[in-house]
Amino acid sequence: MSRFRAEIAEQPAVARRVLAASRQAVGHAAAAVGARAVSGLVIAARGSSDHAATYAKYLFELRNRLPVSLASPSEYTKYLTPPRLDRFCVLAISQSGSSPDVVAVVREGRRQGAVTLALTNRPDSDLAREAEIVLPMHAGAERSVPASKTYTASLLMVALLSCALEPDTRFRDALADVPSALEEALRVEEQAASLAHTIHSDRMMADRIIVLGRGYHLATAQEVALKLTETSHVLAQAQSVADFLHGPVAVVEAGLPALLVDSEGPAQADVEAAATLLRDRGARVVQLTDRAEPWPGVEAAITLPTGLPEALAPLPFAVAGQLLAYHLARSRGLDPDHPHQLQKVTRTW
Amino acid sequence: MSRFRAEIAEQPAVARRVLAASRQAVGHAAAAVGARAVSGLVIAARGSSDHAATYAKYLFELRNRLPVSLASPSEYTKYLTPPRLDRFCVLAISQSGSSPDVVAVVREGRRQGAVTLALTNRPDSDLAREAEIVLPMHAGAERSVPASKTYTASLLMVALLSCALEPDTRFRDALADVPSALEEALRVEEQAASLAHTIHSDRMMADRIIVLGRGYHLATAQEVALKLTETSHVLAQAQSVADFLHGPVAVVEAGLPALLVDSEGPAQADVEAAATLLRDRGARVVQLTDRAEPWPGVEAAITLPTGLPEALAPLPFAVAGQLLAYHLARSRGLDPDHPHQLQKVTRTW
Repeated sequence: MSRFRAEIAEQPAVARRVLAASRQAVGHAAAAVGARAVSGLVIAARGSSDHAATYAKYLFELRNRLPVSLASPSEYTKYLTPPRLDRFCVLAISQSGSSPDVVAVVREGRRQGAVTLALTNRPDSDLAREAEIVLPMHAGAERSVPASKTYTASLLMVALLSCALEPDTRFRDALADVPSALEEALRVEEQAASLAHTIHSDRMMADRIIVLGRGYHLATAQEVALKLTETSHVLAQAQSVADFLHGPVAVVEAGLPALLVDSEGPAQADVEAAATLLRDRGARVVQLTDRAEPWPGVEAAITLPTGLPEALAPLPFAVAGQLLAYHLARSRGLDPDHPHQLQKVTRTW
Repeated sequence: MSRFRAEIAEQPAVARRVLAASRQAVGHAAAAVGARAVSGLVIAARGSSDHAATYAKYLFELRNRLPVSLASPSEYTKYLTPPRLDRFCVLAISQSGSSPDVVAVVREGRRQGAVTLALTNRPDSDLAREAEIVLPMHAGAERSVPASKTYTASLLMVALLSCALEPDTRFRDALADVPSALEEALRVEEQAASLAHTIHSDRMMADRIIVLGRGYHLATAQEVALKLTETSHVLAQAQSVADFLHGPVAVVEAGLPALLVDSEGPAQADVEAAATLLRDRGARVVQLTDRAEPWPGVEAAITLPTGLPEALAPLPFAVAGQLLAYHLARSRGLDPDHPHQLQKVTRTW
């Protein structure tokens, strides 16, 4: 069996482990952040972890009202005049904890006296050593090159931290439902295989696709796009629906494939409007949604009722996107465990 | 003559006007920001203005050491629980000043007591009315759908604000050189036409291209990619070199076109390394550079010595990118003034 596919299946168990094991570390981090009355967060991450950072940006800004700045690591490693971080909490997200540029952001944050948190799957990594507080992902070794379980573990840890910073009974109860929602997500396999087949057999997605979300699901769009790129060599461009309308919509022509991601929430109507616009202009629209039925005119869909509030829907949706990427790679005769050009750990400076 | 091409040519004059007319407004803004000892900036923008925001992020973080958070407008217009902004300066960048979501960010910032700045070409716009301080772009009416002069005017205003916040004789002298550097950039027209011809005639860029920069030129990569998309309907994906290596590099296959953007500075070696990697893997590499000679193995290039420090090079480089987009549209028989699917002013909520 493919390692990628096997690790996808581990996600409910990983989520249970995270929920059971993280209370103390998360509480410690929340206390440190609360004690400093920070102005906001600076988050450093690359690749899939950078999409976890997008999720964190929405969650911390909306639930905790803390502005989030995504770090530009070259300022720390190349230009050497990084911004003042002492009024911020610096959070790094990295499975391996070993990309030197992400480590450099945390090192500088600590040097300046900021609260520094390392969310990593390797508590023995350089990143963990540099940070004041380590938040382990508890995902176990991830061996497939495309990330799966470390992505959803990162999202869950971010959500736990948000909850610890601003406790709320309903949100805490919803967090407890995440493992079973991830189990439900594994049951969309047939739909994912069918959507992959539609995409592949029709050559509609020969070499490019646009992936659109808004709000919390911008992170989902980014992560699904990367999974499609990594496993199936598709140039997949992810954007928020609103940004897409400010220019990139010019690329729409008959036959252009577009994957829309939405779940119940304030942004859902915008995604529906985009579906109509894209369909009217001849794009071939497919969808990943929590609705029982896809939007009218959608050619194929994965429908995934999650039972979760929108703020947690990116977790099961990521699983559905992983299954789509896995089956698309198989349809194309590619090895999803070993994308070409990539190693498991990428080090950038 | 094409309006787009005519407005491209106006940029040296616009830059002179900005330098002559903006001292008071910029000084006023800098005094307001300085008086509040802000923790950082929150910038709201869409489309080309969002790429000016990317430029502003690097400049304010590197020159002024102020962390920058790019606003997610849906938090203000859809989710309705925006972050706390009172310790920040809120800067909106918008040519038209009329996209409701960008206006909403400024309105909320002002309601919360933040310093609010509106950088706009329309001092009579909703955006200008909502902000405490208006920074006019002085670009004159822009009628072509793809932005040109309002983009470089935005960058110049951002640079003037950065300089006013932290005066520095060398940087101020370099600012005075911008108009003549933009004139020089207009002289690369033949190179731009030739590069467009190479791209078009070879069908190397049938429908997709990756555009890579790092540091200050991430903004250039984003803006050139959008210009290519708007005028020539190419799915152009812009990324930092480092982010590209963390996953999207999987898309590289023989024949994939890649445009690299670099000028002298700490990030240039990284772009060179990416050029080597891409060439070794069979990509077709073209370049926009300030070097006298392109990197080895590059198929075609625009070489543009700017005489400016890297922090200001994105201004003349944007002009070169506009000329490339203009000539590519002509090679493809498209009307660069009126991209399909787009109006001049996009309103998103």
